[in-house]
Amino acid sequence: MEFSSSKSLTDQITRRARILTSHLNQVTTSCYSSPSLEQSVCLEYSPPEISEKINFDTQEMRKLLDDHDIEDRDWLFGLLTQNELFCPKISGGKVFVTPDYNQSKEQQREVTMKRIEYLCDHGVFNGWLTSKTDGIEAAEKRKFAFYSVICIYDYSLATKVAVHFFLWGGAIHFFGTKRHHDKWLKDTENYVVKGCFAMTELGHGSNVRGIETITTYDKSTGEFVINTPCESAQKYWIGGLANHATHTVAFSQLYIDGVNQGIHALIVQVRDAHGNVCPNIRIADCGHKIGLNGVDNGRIWFDNVRIPRENLLNSVADVSPDGQYLSAIKNPDQRFAAFLAPLTSGRVTISVSSIYQSKIGLAIALRYSLTRRAFSNSPNGPEVLLLDYPSHQRRLLPLLAKTCAMSFGANYLKRMYVNRTPQANKTIHVVSSAFKAAFTWHNMRTLQVKSHTNIYLNVLQRGNVLIPSYWNTYQECREACGGQGLKTENRMGHLKSEYDVQSTFEGDNHVLMQQVSKALIAEYIAAQKMKKPFKGLGLEHMNDPCPAIPAQLTSSILRSTNFQMDIFCLRERDLLHRFASEVSQLQAQGESKVNAFMLTYQTAEDLAKAFTERTVLQTFLEAEVAVSDGALKSVFGLLRSMYALISIEEDISFLRYGCLSPDMDAAVRKEVTKLCNEFRPHTLSAVKSLGIPDAFLSPIAFDWVAANTWSPAQQ
Amino acid sequence: MEFSSSKSLTDQITRRARILTSHLNQVTTSCYSSPSLEQSVCLEYSPPEISEKINFDTQEMRKLLDDHDIEDRDWLFGLLTQNELFCPKISGGKVFVTPDYNQSKEQQREVTMKRIEYLCDHGVFNGWLTSKTDGIEAAEKRKFAFYSVICIYDYSLATKVAVHFFLWGGAIHFFGTKRHHDKWLKDTENYVVKGCFAMTELGHGSNVRGIETITTYDKSTGEFVINTPCESAQKYWIGGLANHATHTVAFSQLYIDGVNQGIHALIVQVRDAHGNVCPNIRIADCGHKIGLNGVDNGRIWFDNVRIPRENLLNSVADVSPDGQYLSAIKNPDQRFAAFLAPLTSGRVTISVSSIYQSKIGLAIALRYSLTRRAFSNSPNGPEVLLLDYPSHQRRLLPLLAKTCAMSFGANYLKRMYVNRTPQANKTIHVVSSAFKAAFTWHNMRTLQVKSHTNIYLNVLQRGNVLIPSYWNTYQECREACGGQGLKTENRMGHLKSEYDVQSTFEGDNHVLMQQVSKALIAEYIAAQKMKKPFKGLGLEHMNDPCPAIPAQLTSSILRSTNFQMDIFCLRERDLLHRFASEVSQLQAQGESKVNAFMLTYQTAEDLAKAFTERTVLQTFLEAEVAVSDGALKSVFGLLRSMYALISIEEDISFLRYGCLSPDMDAAVRKEVTKLCNEFRPHTLSAVKSLGIPDAFLSPIAFDWVAANTWSPAQQ
Repeated sequence: MEFSSSKSLTDQITRRARILTSHLNQVTTSCYSSPSLEQSVCLEYSPPEISEKINFDTQEMRKLLDDHDIEDRDWLFGLLTQNELFCPKISGGKVFVTPDYNQSKEQQREVTMKRIEYLCDHGVFNGWLTSKTDGIEAAEKRKFAFYSVICIYDYSLATKVAVHFFLWGGAIHFFGTKRHHDKWLKDTENYVVKGCFAMTELGHGSNVRGIETITTYDKSTGEFVINTPCESAQKYWIGGLANHATHTVAFSQLYIDGVNQGIHALIVQVRDAHGNVCPNIRIADCGHKIGLNGVDNGRIWFDNVRIPRENLLNSVADVSPDGQYLSAIKNPDQRFAAFLAPLTSGRVTISVSSIYQSKIGLAIALRYSLTRRAFSNSPNGPEVLLLDYPSHQRRLLPLLAKTCAMSFGANYLKRMYVNRTPQANKTIHVVSSAFKAAFTWHNMRTLQVKSHTNIYLNVLQRGNVLIPSYWNTYQECREACGGQGLKTENRMGHLKSEYDVQSTFEGDNHVLMQQVSKALIAEYIAAQKMKKPFKGLGLEHMNDPCPAIPAQLTSSILRSTNFQMDIFCLRERDLLHRFASEVSQLQAQGESKVNAFMLTYQTAEDLAKAFTERTVLQTFLEAEVAVSDGALKSVFGLLRSMYALISIEEDISFLRYGCLSPDMDAAVRKEVTKLCNEFRPHTLSAVKSLGIPDAFLSPIAFDWVAANTWSPAQQ
Repeated sequence: MEFSSSKSLTDQITRRARILTSHLNQVTTSCYSSPSLEQSVCLEYSPPEISEKINFDTQEMRKLLDDHDIEDRDWLFGLLTQNELFCPKISGGKVFVTPDYNQSKEQQREVTMKRIEYLCDHGVFNGWLTSKTDGIEAAEKRKFAFYSVICIYDYSLATKVAVHFFLWGGAIHFFGTKRHHDKWLKDTENYVVKGCFAMTELGHGSNVRGIETITTYDKSTGEFVINTPCESAQKYWIGGLANHATHTVAFSQLYIDGVNQGIHALIVQVRDAHGNVCPNIRIADCGHKIGLNGVDNGRIWFDNVRIPRENLLNSVADVSPDGQYLSAIKNPDQRFAAFLAPLTSGRVTISVSSIYQSKIGLAIALRYSLTRRAFSNSPNGPEVLLLDYPSHQRRLLPLLAKTCAMSFGANYLKRMYVNRTPQANKTIHVVSSAFKAAFTWHNMRTLQVKSHTNIYLNVLQRGNVLIPSYWNTYQECREACGGQGLKTENRMGHLKSEYDVQSTFEGDNHVLMQQVSKALIAEYIAAQKMKKPFKGLGLEHMNDPCPAIPAQLTSSILRSTNFQMDIFCLRERDLLHRFASEVSQLQAQGESKVNAFMLTYQTAEDLAKAFTERTVLQTFLEAEVAVSDGALKSVFGLLRSMYALISIEEDISFLRYGCLSPDMDAAVRKEVTKLCNEFRPHTLSAVKSLGIPDAFLSPIAFDWVAANTWSPAQQ
């Protein structure tokens, strides 16, 4: 191999040379004498608060996003940071609280239970099941607020709380009558009993009606006898069961005088006060999971377990002491529906709380992108702040707009729920299904994008990566959060695993979306048959003439509420017609209704998405109208336009079904880029409005250099 | 509340009533006497082998997919199932091997190291770094085969192996010269030294050129002195460093006579033979991660560490004993590129191995969907097999087609790589960038869909879910894998967390896709300037007239290779013109080249995708041509058409840029559904062709009832 001596200075000595030379004198024998430079030429952290302006009233914005109980939320955030149980750790001079996920599932389960006891002792759950009638609305709102805070800390903790209060407690409340309420609700609120919810089985999950557990009534003793007849009938994935539950609501087929009366719910004690499993009960663990290992999911077999007659939750049906089956609802289908319908609350809860997970991810990623620099635009220029790359703005800011839009949607749903009337039940059911699906999908996507934009750098840094220099100029959003997203302590990557299950809790999102479309088509058919105008579910726009969309989409048209509502309504109208026509054509060809729906599931999902986004946009507009003119109002306008236009850009339906031409689509995409650029200066203010305290973000959201400083203790 | 007595039989007693009654006599006091029924009416597992036909030669298909070293792969699979280190567990009467992920990171790291030692002792790594020239091609292929098998078992194990062999070993091999090869390669292959790769720093990840570590030369002692001048210069995320590595390749700025010669690589010993950290070295842990906790990622600080002059890896540049800097490459940019270019192998390796992760997920989900039933189509009918739902077919089968297509793509890339010539370097670089990005994205999506279709049932079953009965008719693919995907033992959900990092290893996928487009635009500009036809990268179709697509897309047109290639070429051609024109317009408006690329990143990604899919389709066609007529050939045709048409359906570019009208798009979507239905009977055969042994799938892929049977030991 031949070498030639290279004595000439390279023509690309960057400013970094100055940094390097400051350290040379320590060791080098070189005759080169460098100017004495300060330590400060090394890379340093600069808080975004120094460079960024606060452009609007962030407290006011937070009030609009959180909607209620701001002080109570902050009180609970404070409570969680004050106790060792919640693992406070100091990093870079700040305290962060987050569970220790390096623990085994056994350890995580025990500490989760201890955290619940701590919250219980501090009165967090007061009134969750026993609030007086005159304060129910306020108590329910406060419960939503506290539950969201618990979700922000840890989703295992939230899930274990939800199973106990919303499923076990909810079953007692909705399916039970006064005797159950008197006996169980107070003890549940105080955790004197620990409840779980035994519905699904190994052999039947979604198809709950097919469960194989059997209950019969023994009139000679006045007892029910509940039995697991075969392995596929074992109750499966029952949260809280494997280690802690003392009682469960067991769902089974109720057999009276040889007749199956369908599914009913009974209270069964599964452990005594000392934690010993009761006679004729077998319990097994579901094992390690991909997330939520703080929740003790279990399996249970009932071996002809005898329970008092009074343990049947009898709001829907009862059995008299002499064994007569009694029900006001004759139709078993309706009876089954009655058992399930009250638990819409689960979907409302998820819709409301899931948004906060996006907020955590966005707050961390955006704060980091305001402090991390990568690559220079010019040979000797400074490295560029991540959020100043157009692609980085475009990756994160539309997600922020969507998250805000969904907050307004969630607030609308929550208000409708806490003030619910029998007339509003259908709307609550449909909107909660739609929002739950759309919000949890958004949530996963946000965490994914976040963790991707966050991990790639440090994944690159794992040592498996080499990027040729000629790539460098083009890597705007690649350095995102410096890759710290891979570290559990930095939350984002980890949140993704933990929250993944959310998109399937309380009904698979795809199923929910189809539910929504079936509700819409029912309205459509009713309106056609009765020749009456549409009323409810926001479908009144169907009564108007078809909106006309201008062919030339200027910036001001694209940002107008008229255009945005029109095009959202146009898409929904077109898809509703299309879905109805596809279903009826298939039926005309001889397909059963069941099959017709089965074969049109894609159009059904497109329609449900159109319904969801139109509903969210409406709630955004209503929130915007209430804001008085000024800086906040104009930020609202930017966010709303970003939400509307990114939704158009991302939904292929607009092009597929001809609502937009390719040229119009191009105009929309261009405007999104412009909006991101205009919104850029408001980013830090927006992040501060999200209402997540610093301790619930992560070290990379703040001084990540200090957080990584060498200390012998880290060894 | 009023009750009325309900004595009449309900009109919806299903066949399940018969099941229930078989258990009644044990306990009931009812006078109802039931026919004596067998236990078999309970839900039972039936192996798909009983109901499904094997329709083609699955061994032949496996040979085409795996391409080489089938026997060696099976030998290694066998080796992994034979030792307790790999945690064999019996479930449902079958053995499965998978790591225990309930262990702490410390435990996972230790067992990962022990597994490596076991593989080393059994000769798995023989020849990975020291194969003779005459057998290099065969040795490289075998290395690919073995590495894929290791990835199938556990990605932490694979990553730790990759860091040691491909990064540390690869650096010695490519950057070192004979003295390094003689001294280090054999000891590396035998794990006498344990290597790692210290390139990225806290302050600089993607932007490797900006790293702040400094090396100087002390000619008085003939030593280099390497130093970490500030906290942001600490090496970060270094795989293998925190616990095990004895040596590292350290990248730093090399300063000779006060002149920065740019980045160079040196061998530094970091631990002695007893595992003690060497003087002037500080090592810290990177902590718990969201996945890959079996890999010990660490951080390192060099405190003026002195190393012999010979430790500079000097294939690109050297320093003479008296301190003269010597390099054949005068331009520092080119020198930097030379340091990085040889490591294309990483992307080839990922492209090849990532496909197997999709195969694991698909094999499990498809086998399960051939044994799990959910919901009846008619009141008393049997429940329907999951894979007989059209939506379930459409969710899984196109992913299977894509996975097969990508296998052929990977085989093409692998062959080009092991027979590499200097002329092929550019193609290898571009194709490996494109495939690595596309395949790992596909991989994540497959695992996501898989785990979603798999977890929702059991997530539903977690107890948080209640599905009203009227949803039931519409839940075809919701029951998918019975939700067992949440369980770590069932692999799919867990694979997702473990492999998530893959889409950012060896270059963020977005960056890679932009790289591809920059290479394509360079070809475009060269062809324009030179007025020469396109040659290479498969762009020869650009020399032909623009292909004409028929307006009426019949089934036979849609399935023809002509149409499929034409439309793929049309999209690529259109996007290449479009990208070139956008960039040149921006430059004409005064934007710098850097900025012009930055602002057109979306078109760049669309183009790279078009390039990738066209290349994959070509490799598929080449594989298909070689198959002789018969059952296998017609299955190839179905898979290829599914691949081509689902790629069209999923890429909004076809509509956005006018390659397809909405009507044509609708015809494509309809044909995909038909193809899925036609392919359905071949599913089990296809799964068997994927070449993943049963022990590397999971309990739900086989008798999941037996696997969940009660046993006191499970307590």
